[in-house]
Amino acid sequence: MLDIEENAHAIVVDWGTTSLRAYLVTRKGFVLAEKETESGGIQFITNGRFEESLMEAVGGWLDRIGKIPVIALGMVTSRNGWVEVPYASCPADAQTLAKGTMRRTLPNGSDLILLPGLTDPAASPFPDVMRGEETQIVGFGLADDITLVLPGTHSKWARVADGAIASFQTFVTGELYALLTKHSFIARSAGGAVDGAANWDVFNRGARLVAESRTPVLLSQLFSARTGMLAGELRAQDIRDYVSGLIIAHEFAQARERGWFVSGDHIGIVGNDGLNERYARVAPLFGLSAAQGADDVVILGALEIASNL
Amino acid sequence: MLDIEENAHAIVVDWGTTSLRAYLVTRKGFVLAEKETESGGIQFITNGRFEESLMEAVGGWLDRIGKIPVIALGMVTSRNGWVEVPYASCPADAQTLAKGTMRRTLPNGSDLILLPGLTDPAASPFPDVMRGEETQIVGFGLADDITLVLPGTHSKWARVADGAIASFQTFVTGELYALLTKHSFIARSAGGAVDGAANWDVFNRGARLVAESRTPVLLSQLFSARTGMLAGELRAQDIRDYVSGLIIAHEFAQARERGWFVSGDHIGIVGNDGLNERYARVAPLFGLSAAQGADDVVILGALEIASNL
Repeated sequence: MLDIEENAHAIVVDWGTTSLRAYLVTRKGFVLAEKETESGGIQFITNGRFEESLMEAVGGWLDRIGKIPVIALGMVTSRNGWVEVPYASCPADAQTLAKGTMRRTLPNGSDLILLPGLTDPAASPFPDVMRGEETQIVGFGLADDITLVLPGTHSKWARVADGAIASFQTFVTGELYALLTKHSFIARSAGGAVDGAANWDVFNRGARLVAESRTPVLLSQLFSARTGMLAGELRAQDIRDYVSGLIIAHEFAQARERGWFVSGDHIGIVGNDGLNERYARVAPLFGLSAAQGADDVVILGALEIASNL
Repeated sequence: MLDIEENAHAIVVDWGTTSLRAYLVTRKGFVLAEKETESGGIQFITNGRFEESLMEAVGGWLDRIGKIPVIALGMVTSRNGWVEVPYASCPADAQTLAKGTMRRTLPNGSDLILLPGLTDPAASPFPDVMRGEETQIVGFGLADDITLVLPGTHSKWARVADGAIASFQTFVTGELYALLTKHSFIARSAGGAVDGAANWDVFNRGARLVAESRTPVLLSQLFSARTGMLAGELRAQDIRDYVSGLIIAHEFAQARERGWFVSGDHIGIVGNDGLNERYARVAPLFGLSAAQGADDVVILGALEIASNL
């Protein structure tokens, strides 16, 4: 065990819409302690009580350690968050992002460093946006040219080129999956079936339907969750994994359509939303080999950006 | 005014998941009286009280008129409905559908005629299904070869050929629109904006984005509802119509992808879900001319099928 007082270098706060995750880390990004507060997501915060919510998570560490930089990123820096930090613009590296940070001082005198999100002004029809994923990409590394996918509620496909994040595109895959499995005919078909370990056979079946289709059409193929049950080919407990495979494969098909990869490419899968294995299983169906990013890329990225201040 | 006792020929009951609509009609399908019970949809019916629910709607007419055929169609004949009537199979005309009907006798001795749904066994990956739309198509007419779209929660594209419904495909467009505008980031962006008259400018903007795209990608283009607001190009009160145009245009793009039409075709738009005008506005963006079916096609279809008994 490393001694906390001696080795604590910074606190990284990954602060999104639904959760707040705080990490007390060493200079190299080793995690000394961590806290996750489910009710700390910005959607739960009322009357602007952001500082109070942050202190609930990290106040104990500050009491113990004293002044230490607190680096915050994610939707907390959005228009609906604590402090709106303007987006940095593609192409962007750690230095570009460092220039876009904003600062506050916390009650004990610690620096609060708020990282910017990133916009791709060349995206169509409107500039695309991310908050948090740019930090993960920096943590994954910008040295090699590669296409990355960051699975999530709003998945991102991004291109790293010439040492910078060159461009990216958002796909609302995770949100659509949640809507369908919580509120739709798919939710009713799945009934009370419990989410357990993934059934990879039915996941693959949904994914292959799309990967092997010459004309993948999402609006119609989603209905196969119902017709498959009527045909006795899918069981209630299969529906969620079947739809998961189907919709993630549609993300790949649409990313391919938009030129993010061609069969034979090597891509990176980056993120910590618990979806990486699903994406890694779909990638080869589209002729891709895939490297998975480490779990701590967001920490490494935050430290890298802060080191450029 | 036609005299009801003298001219009443049948009662047609369009009985779906969310509503029950009953029509007292003449031999030619002229509506003498109608009733819509919002709580009569099969999803609201508990303890199998289908007959009681039907009597609430049509009991008064039966008391007044005596014995008269009651023709019911829609999800009431599904596995979750009153009596499961097996699907008839494509290709199907009014005679095929008449052969698939089932009968019950109502308390006053009237015939209850339950119409079958229709399945397309050639559909991929599983046989596709409809319940109710086949009756609308029969009412629209099977004399001329034509492609039809029936807008709705689960839209259908169908091919009429050689005097029969030859094939069809389901698209879950309406359900996805409802999910997105009720529960998603889109719902939150739209906020409390009130549904008023459609704003056709923003509707067209969403539809054209897709129609003019060489690579329409739904999962990504949906996110433009957010980025358009961030860019100051869309207002909260625009979001629903923008997404409506966008998603209906995706249905057209995907139907084209699956060979339901090519630019220059003439199609029919059939249905009474209040969506026909929206579909009629999108059709020309895909090079289509479109004829709209009359509102009473379901009545004409039910009478036509029953006349073949």
